[in-house]
Amino acid sequence: MEPGRRMDVGILAMDIYFPPTCVQQEALEDYDGASKGKYTVGLGQDCMAFCTELEDVISMSLTVVLSLLEKYQIDPRQIGRLEVGSETVIDKSKSIKTWLMQIFEEYDNTDVEGVDSTNACYGGTAALFNCVNWVESSTWDGRYGLVVCTDSAVYAEGPARPTGGAAAIAMLIGPNAPISLESKFRGTHMAHVYDFYKPNLASEYPVVDGKLSQTCYLMALDSCYKRFCGKFENIEGKQFSISDGNYFVFHSPYNKLVQKSFARLVFNDFLCCPSNLQKEERENLEPFSNMTGEESYQSRELEKVAQQVAKPYYNVKVQPSTLLPKQIGNMYTASLYASLASVVYNKHSTLMGQRIVMFSYGSGLTSTMFSVKLHDGQHPFSLSNISCILNLSEKLKSRHVFSPENFAKTLKLMEHRYGAKDFETSKDTSLLSPGTFYLTKVDSMYRRCYAKKGSEDAPGSKKMSSFSSMSLTNAY
Amino acid sequence: MEPGRRMDVGILAMDIYFPPTCVQQEALEDYDGASKGKYTVGLGQDCMAFCTELEDVISMSLTVVLSLLEKYQIDPRQIGRLEVGSETVIDKSKSIKTWLMQIFEEYDNTDVEGVDSTNACYGGTAALFNCVNWVESSTWDGRYGLVVCTDSAVYAEGPARPTGGAAAIAMLIGPNAPISLESKFRGTHMAHVYDFYKPNLASEYPVVDGKLSQTCYLMALDSCYKRFCGKFENIEGKQFSISDGNYFVFHSPYNKLVQKSFARLVFNDFLCCPSNLQKEERENLEPFSNMTGEESYQSRELEKVAQQVAKPYYNVKVQPSTLLPKQIGNMYTASLYASLASVVYNKHSTLMGQRIVMFSYGSGLTSTMFSVKLHDGQHPFSLSNISCILNLSEKLKSRHVFSPENFAKTLKLMEHRYGAKDFETSKDTSLLSPGTFYLTKVDSMYRRCYAKKGSEDAPGSKKMSSFSSMSLTNAY
Repeated sequence: MEPGRRMDVGILAMDIYFPPTCVQQEALEDYDGASKGKYTVGLGQDCMAFCTELEDVISMSLTVVLSLLEKYQIDPRQIGRLEVGSETVIDKSKSIKTWLMQIFEEYDNTDVEGVDSTNACYGGTAALFNCVNWVESSTWDGRYGLVVCTDSAVYAEGPARPTGGAAAIAMLIGPNAPISLESKFRGTHMAHVYDFYKPNLASEYPVVDGKLSQTCYLMALDSCYKRFCGKFENIEGKQFSISDGNYFVFHSPYNKLVQKSFARLVFNDFLCCPSNLQKEERENLEPFSNMTGEESYQSRELEKVAQQVAKPYYNVKVQPSTLLPKQIGNMYTASLYASLASVVYNKHSTLMGQRIVMFSYGSGLTSTMFSVKLHDGQHPFSLSNISCILNLSEKLKSRHVFSPENFAKTLKLMEHRYGAKDFETSKDTSLLSPGTFYLTKVDSMYRRCYAKKGSEDAPGSKKMSSFSSMSLTNAY
Repeated sequence: MEPGRRMDVGILAMDIYFPPTCVQQEALEDYDGASKGKYTVGLGQDCMAFCTELEDVISMSLTVVLSLLEKYQIDPRQIGRLEVGSETVIDKSKSIKTWLMQIFEEYDNTDVEGVDSTNACYGGTAALFNCVNWVESSTWDGRYGLVVCTDSAVYAEGPARPTGGAAAIAMLIGPNAPISLESKFRGTHMAHVYDFYKPNLASEYPVVDGKLSQTCYLMALDSCYKRFCGKFENIEGKQFSISDGNYFVFHSPYNKLVQKSFARLVFNDFLCCPSNLQKEERENLEPFSNMTGEESYQSRELEKVAQQVAKPYYNVKVQPSTLLPKQIGNMYTASLYASLASVVYNKHSTLMGQRIVMFSYGSGLTSTMFSVKLHDGQHPFSLSNISCILNLSEKLKSRHVFSPENFAKTLKLMEHRYGAKDFETSKDTSLLSPGTFYLTKVDSMYRRCYAKKGSEDAPGSKKMSSFSSMSLTNAY
């Protein structure tokens, strides 16, 4: 650490929003005529959130940003940088960030740097790194950064459809953070591949090569882990193994890939330094020790054995991060940070001094492994307060389960609405919580109008904080 | 400056590529049946570059990145971060940066952070700031950053069509730069507006409200200038006026707006501190001193008088930046940096110790005014070498002028090609220089194939530098 640097720059506060509308994976299996367990065990998913015609990546991010500012009592004038990560394109030129400026313009704060960062599910990580670097740079003006990850993952009818999801996360960035980045341990791997992309501009659906994408993910993971371990060894003077991380958090397209990924790290530890493992574990993995990389990605047997060996560690080091991804589905840029939020929510009181290793992956491809350290924080930026504000169990419990028929009907409607103009939505906000932004219409010039569901019609809703009563109106 | 910070972080090297194909604005006036001088005087434009079916933002950025690395003899393994600014969407998920990774993968360098930054013409500035902050951050690993701005600006038939253009710029980033950012003087203004946007996803053309966009540009300019001057005054203890900047470089959609913008700064200086101006200048502007902001944006009379007052200063402080924008047209994210390149090219030997004030604008909107200081640099990163490598006059002279008919025909073809799959291009590279990348086909899965025009078929082409002979192939 050089003199004059800001210490412990990272995440001061988090909040998440996901649509209250979801479909059960078990019901989807039935509806799709898939074999029992194909989605719930094969993919490892329980439930999937989706946007109805009322919500999109802009409305979700408006909702979560205002929610974070209110709940942590942050004056919008204290935000000096706002970065958005997203791969859900509503406009090819105008950034989602500019829509969010509405919140800040109401407080005459237009001095807010930052735009949108784009590469598949990695945009949120790019936004986070950019925001942290800003705080560490000579241009920092002492105000907070704000990172928003917002995405709606939808797929054409077929095998990829159950791997959708939707959410928006907001993270406040600054020094002396309870979740600080260990900036020297970072392994990055970037390459040119066509594993998942969105070249059909008129359609919201991606082109996906599922098998290639999984191999790319695991190869990128190996490469990042190797670099991460190398840097750790250079600085700490000892080999890194999974015992040096208390939790491992992965970008989660579906839970099964997270299981495979963690097992892959265990296999890497075995290859690199077998003594890290117990005798029986070593013996189980021994038959695979001479495989080429390519063979190892294709071997079902290795996959199975490595997962068995990893299982007890998985239960402790990974499982706590899987709450939201299993319940919501793939949130693209928000997925990794929803997994981090799950750990903080589940384990906040025991996290002090611990290390969480994070793996961010975006198809195309871009990937980074990095780590965060957990600290005491000062209220309101303490782990316990973050956990309390996240309020995940309550948010999950209050959702409305749609039938697969209604889910499919909603997606059909959205296909027509994507890129369309000159329509109004139903404005039926009965399923939305007070404070939720929603789309009311898109005019003949494609201009989008949003409104905020008033809190007055919701008994027991949280009292608005002082700043929000000043001038925020309900029309956006 | 705090201890331990890297000094003078900024632009070490630049290179620009623009298509060799262009159309004369005077011929376009004729062809469009526009009044004589409408494009050449009314817009202030001379010529417009455009991509044929062989080129796009990916091929242009491949060309310029490899050209910069070769001409400055930079080993691709020395690049630790690569950021792209663009608003030309070929894929909604896969970043342009991942296509550029092909160059670095050949050298086994996949450890290259950064993705694409998006908001209209501002993405390049966001990428530059992100790259500079990275060098100043605790994560910097001592390698170079690389910023690429690449765009193709095309408009539907009608009044906006002559405001197109196309180019890609590459800038190498690091400490002790001949063009360093004065990070403390920075004025930013961000807001939510619909002045220019791209909501019609299937079309390459934007939706533009030309009058609104011009007003937004000038309002953002005023706001940024005010903030920039405020920070200057806080730190330097004296008022900023245009006499404190040797050159003023603006994002240039068309030259006329640059003339108006500079005049607006002079008007701001007059309002803020009339004594900055000569007696006669003051008398000319006096009648407008009590206008409201809104009135001042609408007043043709003020526009005219302010431009007259500003003219002698414009000729000295702005004119040298207008070479490329007048000859190429709007290059979106590359426009501001093509203007900077024009100053460096025209004035390199006299720039030492001078200050250039830059105004970046992206519709939607995002805008920042910032400044750079010019220093002696060490070869190859000296202003004179940058000027020599830019080689602008030669590049401009060797272009091929298309008739307006052929230009219109090309754009018609490109309308069909945008977002399309399963086609091959003519592969007729006769107009391209050796070393230029070009599109050969898009397959049935939308995968894009590029090739590089070999240098062997061009007598007198530059000898390839040592690194490029190692392993770079001709197929991408």
